[in-house]
Amino acid sequence: MRFRILALLAALAIGSPGRAAELNVMPLPEAFSFASGRLAVTREFTVVFKGQKTAALEAAVGRALRRWEERTGLVFPRTPTGTYAFAADPEHATLVIDSAAAAPELPQLGVDESYSLEVTGAQVSLRAPTTLGAQRGLETLLQLLESDSQGWSVPAIAIKDHPRFPWRGLLIDVARHWQPIEVIKRNLDGMALAKLNVLHLHLSDDQGFRVESKTLPRLHAQGSDGHYFTQEQIREIIAYAAARGIRVVPEFDMPGHSQSWFVGYPELASAPGPYQIERHWGVFNPVTDPTKETTYAFLEKFLGEMTALFPDPYFHIGGDENNGVQWSANAAIQAFIKEHDLKNNEGLHAYFNRRIQKILTADGKNLVGWDEILHPDLPASAVIQSWRGPKGLAAAAEAGHPVILSNGYYIDLCHPAADHYLNDPLPSTNALTAEQQARVLGGEATMWAEWATPETIDSRIWPRTAAIAERLWSPAKVNDVDAMYRRLDYASQRLTEAGLLHQTQLAPMLRRYAGDAITPSGLEALREFVAFVQPVQGYRRGGYQDGSQFLALTGLADCATPDSKAGRAFARAVDAVVNGKADPHSLTRFAQSWRELGARIQTHAAETGARAAELKSLSEQLIDAAAYVGDLLGKFASARADEAWLKSASVRLEAISRPQSAAELSIAEPLKLLTAAASEWPRREKLTPAEWRELVHRTAFPPEKP
Amino acid sequence: MRFRILALLAALAIGSPGRAAELNVMPLPEAFSFASGRLAVTREFTVVFKGQKTAALEAAVGRALRRWEERTGLVFPRTPTGTYAFAADPEHATLVIDSAAAAPELPQLGVDESYSLEVTGAQVSLRAPTTLGAQRGLETLLQLLESDSQGWSVPAIAIKDHPRFPWRGLLIDVARHWQPIEVIKRNLDGMALAKLNVLHLHLSDDQGFRVESKTLPRLHAQGSDGHYFTQEQIREIIAYAAARGIRVVPEFDMPGHSQSWFVGYPELASAPGPYQIERHWGVFNPVTDPTKETTYAFLEKFLGEMTALFPDPYFHIGGDENNGVQWSANAAIQAFIKEHDLKNNEGLHAYFNRRIQKILTADGKNLVGWDEILHPDLPASAVIQSWRGPKGLAAAAEAGHPVILSNGYYIDLCHPAADHYLNDPLPSTNALTAEQQARVLGGEATMWAEWATPETIDSRIWPRTAAIAERLWSPAKVNDVDAMYRRLDYASQRLTEAGLLHQTQLAPMLRRYAGDAITPSGLEALREFVAFVQPVQGYRRGGYQDGSQFLALTGLADCATPDSKAGRAFARAVDAVVNGKADPHSLTRFAQSWRELGARIQTHAAETGARAAELKSLSEQLIDAAAYVGDLLGKFASARADEAWLKSASVRLEAISRPQSAAELSIAEPLKLLTAAASEWPRREKLTPAEWRELVHRTAFPPEKP
Repeated sequence: MRFRILALLAALAIGSPGRAAELNVMPLPEAFSFASGRLAVTREFTVVFKGQKTAALEAAVGRALRRWEERTGLVFPRTPTGTYAFAADPEHATLVIDSAAAAPELPQLGVDESYSLEVTGAQVSLRAPTTLGAQRGLETLLQLLESDSQGWSVPAIAIKDHPRFPWRGLLIDVARHWQPIEVIKRNLDGMALAKLNVLHLHLSDDQGFRVESKTLPRLHAQGSDGHYFTQEQIREIIAYAAARGIRVVPEFDMPGHSQSWFVGYPELASAPGPYQIERHWGVFNPVTDPTKETTYAFLEKFLGEMTALFPDPYFHIGGDENNGVQWSANAAIQAFIKEHDLKNNEGLHAYFNRRIQKILTADGKNLVGWDEILHPDLPASAVIQSWRGPKGLAAAAEAGHPVILSNGYYIDLCHPAADHYLNDPLPSTNALTAEQQARVLGGEATMWAEWATPETIDSRIWPRTAAIAERLWSPAKVNDVDAMYRRLDYASQRLTEAGLLHQTQLAPMLRRYAGDAITPSGLEALREFVAFVQPVQGYRRGGYQDGSQFLALTGLADCATPDSKAGRAFARAVDAVVNGKADPHSLTRFAQSWRELGARIQTHAAETGARAAELKSLSEQLIDAAAYVGDLLGKFASARADEAWLKSASVRLEAISRPQSAAELSIAEPLKLLTAAASEWPRREKLTPAEWRELVHRTAFPPEKP
Repeated sequence: MRFRILALLAALAIGSPGRAAELNVMPLPEAFSFASGRLAVTREFTVVFKGQKTAALEAAVGRALRRWEERTGLVFPRTPTGTYAFAADPEHATLVIDSAAAAPELPQLGVDESYSLEVTGAQVSLRAPTTLGAQRGLETLLQLLESDSQGWSVPAIAIKDHPRFPWRGLLIDVARHWQPIEVIKRNLDGMALAKLNVLHLHLSDDQGFRVESKTLPRLHAQGSDGHYFTQEQIREIIAYAAARGIRVVPEFDMPGHSQSWFVGYPELASAPGPYQIERHWGVFNPVTDPTKETTYAFLEKFLGEMTALFPDPYFHIGGDENNGVQWSANAAIQAFIKEHDLKNNEGLHAYFNRRIQKILTADGKNLVGWDEILHPDLPASAVIQSWRGPKGLAAAAEAGHPVILSNGYYIDLCHPAADHYLNDPLPSTNALTAEQQARVLGGEATMWAEWATPETIDSRIWPRTAAIAERLWSPAKVNDVDAMYRRLDYASQRLTEAGLLHQTQLAPMLRRYAGDAITPSGLEALREFVAFVQPVQGYRRGGYQDGSQFLALTGLADCATPDSKAGRAFARAVDAVVNGKADPHSLTRFAQSWRELGARIQTHAAETGARAAELKSLSEQLIDAAAYVGDLLGKFASARADEAWLKSASVRLEAISRPQSAAELSIAEPLKLLTAAASEWPRREKLTPAEWRELVHRTAFPPEKP
């Protein structure tokens, strides 16, 4: 938490070139320069392919032009068979696409994705070494459309672009809450827009096994409640992704996180069955028995089937959060460890991984796994996906493994986009050698789905994941948080136009939440209030609600979205005060608006019937937050705070920050900062600006005691 | 048009029992009476089946309870395998479902759908002769949920219910604009909620052939642009519908409306090919050649395949709008008519129908067709679906045919729900004998899709179709338009909760329409303005836009929805003035609000770039409408209008009513009425109220000259 705010201030201090602020493309291209003039987009807009073309590129052009038709209402020329007219003569086409080589039908890690785009008053010229690069350039072009009273146009510009990292992924967990194929497809459209290129499907976990297995059919038949992808659907997803230049990497988590496998095949487990599908969230004991040869016979059969189904050369076996309880409790397993000189459960896990890697190698796959699979005995070709922290990432790279960063990209934890944005896989402070740095392939945003359903998942993924996509695509120096948020608004709108529901779904959810007796003005107040609220961040939600597959995710925390704009505006105003760039009394207007909004909720809460209690509590907290800001403003003028004042402030802040139904006001952090600034204000004049900032942050967010 | 307003006034005059106004269930049950008290809905809510149960009923209970969990946030008890706990002991269950007989797995015309529901403070008792009746009762129960500060509950009530007509349908045209399976599924959920029981799929037309044919694969391969249901999807739709007690009746339109067939099989046509898929809307010349035996061989093969795919005993062959042009121009066809003594093209069409009916009879199907197939030679068992008017319906019933009414239920024409609601298949004024009346099976709303895409189709179907569903289910005497609109608001909310997008989709569409430069206040003004606007009614849209499959339906007319509430409120206020129940100056507040809204649009129009021109025009019209109302108010106090005044008023009204981008202000009709009232006001005192109303309506909407 502390890291975030400091880093954010640092980023603000760095700033960015003014020109960048005017290009509403995300990820921001590597280099661009505007020219004068613009190209009119009219009903005469035509396209021609000059170099290589593929079915994927042609389809991408079709989708792009259709998206523009939907935005503009124009109808572009078409051939008699209904496809867009591709003129034979490049001279007279509006858009000329020139790809030097056809990209493979199935995208591969490392295919050249670079492109250049030149827009003049007469023509768009899109050049790329591969058709895949041309597809990336099309996504950029799509975002350049503008409108004024003269009509639609694209500004004259020259762009050169290529990705910083070759592995830019999004993990979607379809196990905890089932996410059907339409969720996957619309998110693939979103990924294409953000130039992400790896869909990592987390296909099995304690709570569900989500792929049809023809060789071991009790896996999906008994482990999924009937919610799984058929193999035909998997092929459909892979084709849909491939057409957008996106690889699909499957993950079957083993040996832990696999209780759902044991419903149909209890003999796999390290303790006797029977097993049921796990319904709750957490780390559970059931784990595969790695000491039996029948386990490997089973997995060889299973992996043989799945490696044939998923064509990508990378295959993820999870490997995380094996708590060892079943292994420790099983005498035969402990005897096996002794007998094979494996030392302990970790050694046994490493043995299991080596056996699995042999199978995967025979099937032509590279193994990928989470931090925990890292072990001196693991062959260097195995890819480590780091979820636990920068140390793990560095250790893996130093040990010679290709690595992917996910720590810091856990979008399910509902942190702001800025946190993720400033989390660099290769920060300038990294201590890796050039060779080790080259092993850092990129990163993946992880959408774990304990608290996400098809109705809410888009708003947990987007638009924040577009900020991660920019981190992984754009140069490291593109790190101005304000400019990022400005571009993110545009990206969010483009994502909605592509079919993502992150903006759209809020209104019907709120309407259902509010109930039938809500008045229009009550609903409007509620809408503003929910925009002020956020789902609790981090792993805290399970502390407030009984997390299970059966709880409908339709409450206040689900209507609210992460990264509240209203909260962000207050945080910026507080930063300005702390940094001496604004008078503390500039915050009065926030307090005033909270009082008004809180009062409106108090007025209308009863209209929401059974929801009234939680709304009343939270709105009282907001009203007290307003009063608290008033009190703090008084404090700025008085002496340094004593213990008693600090204690009572802390109690009050605690009450203001209290979640209701796992939703909380989005202003707790800046209020802490403001409290620290107010209490220390008299010391300010004696310190340098840097020392003062440091003092305020340390006071607000004291380092945890060891 | 005139019919509608007169009928609406008549209905208002009739009124309805006060109690009905308090039951927010649609369709309104046949009989109900509230008792005192209520049943608390808590996390202890359990269900038990006392009588017969089917998989469909169990699944329906699961869906119903899940819908309630989503609304309440409660988690109801479940068994270890994750299904809802069905207690063994009816005494202690909250909901007891007692069905005397299991309904057939595939719903059939005429299956008993009646049920009774009794809610006490302790228990809900749902009784039905069949499990299908129990499913209908569940939909009623679902709509009874209420909330207050005490929590969730259902009011104590006794309900007895059964449908007035056994055939209550919705036609969805998937040919003009393709509507994929998810559109069909969510609309089936909506149909179940509205107790509709027939999904009529219009599967082929000039613009597309939408079902996979294994025996004649060029039908879908060349006639669909790749947009068709696979046979597996058809089976999925049929199963999904059957689980909700809904029959699926397929329609393959022939011999006209079949150009898409000829792309792959030009030899079927009555003129030489080649043919392309038709892209525009209208009635076209290509028509099947009914004189060749090869045609019947083809159709026997085709119908054999399709009658096996679609299990319902009814099979629709269209038969409408064959303009005869190709037949008249073909000497061989004309010779055939002469040779077989068929008299004319109509005789040839009847010959074709008889041949088709023979095939269908051999396949075990009853033929259904539109009005045009009615012919003295048509066997009485053929069902006539009447789209052209009450006369056609009566003629068919008199000729002994079962009949279905669709005239008056053309929801694609964007008329208000009230029009459809007051359109009774068997109005009290009908001249049919009891035997003929018994042949009136019911009706079907028709969603023709020239102007509807997956994005907009829900808002063209819902909520208005729920009013038609009530007409077909509830007793004829349930016809209070105000009460209907009140219930419709609740139904609309339940439909949204079931996944329909009729409310949800407006915001993102408007946001895309408005463009990137729109400000929040501009967007809010636009939202209010679009709620004031409607897509042009009737068949006029093609007069304003070049109708084709290529035009993106994302403009002003698509963001607007039929049956504007704002327009309706003004119409009611005008009615009150016309009927002497309100002072003309009560209308001043409308004019004032229009001026303000119009001015806001003028202020913000430039933010919408290329859309500014149409918004400026329409907002100017609204501002002039406000001024016009002011002028009319002056007129009320003065002498009867002369020719010159009437002429200038008419010109001004014409300008105010002018559509922009096929969207128009929703106040043109009441303004005409108000103009007539103002111009005739001095005569009012000499007339009875009825004579005065008649005069005003005749003046406003003069009968068309013959």
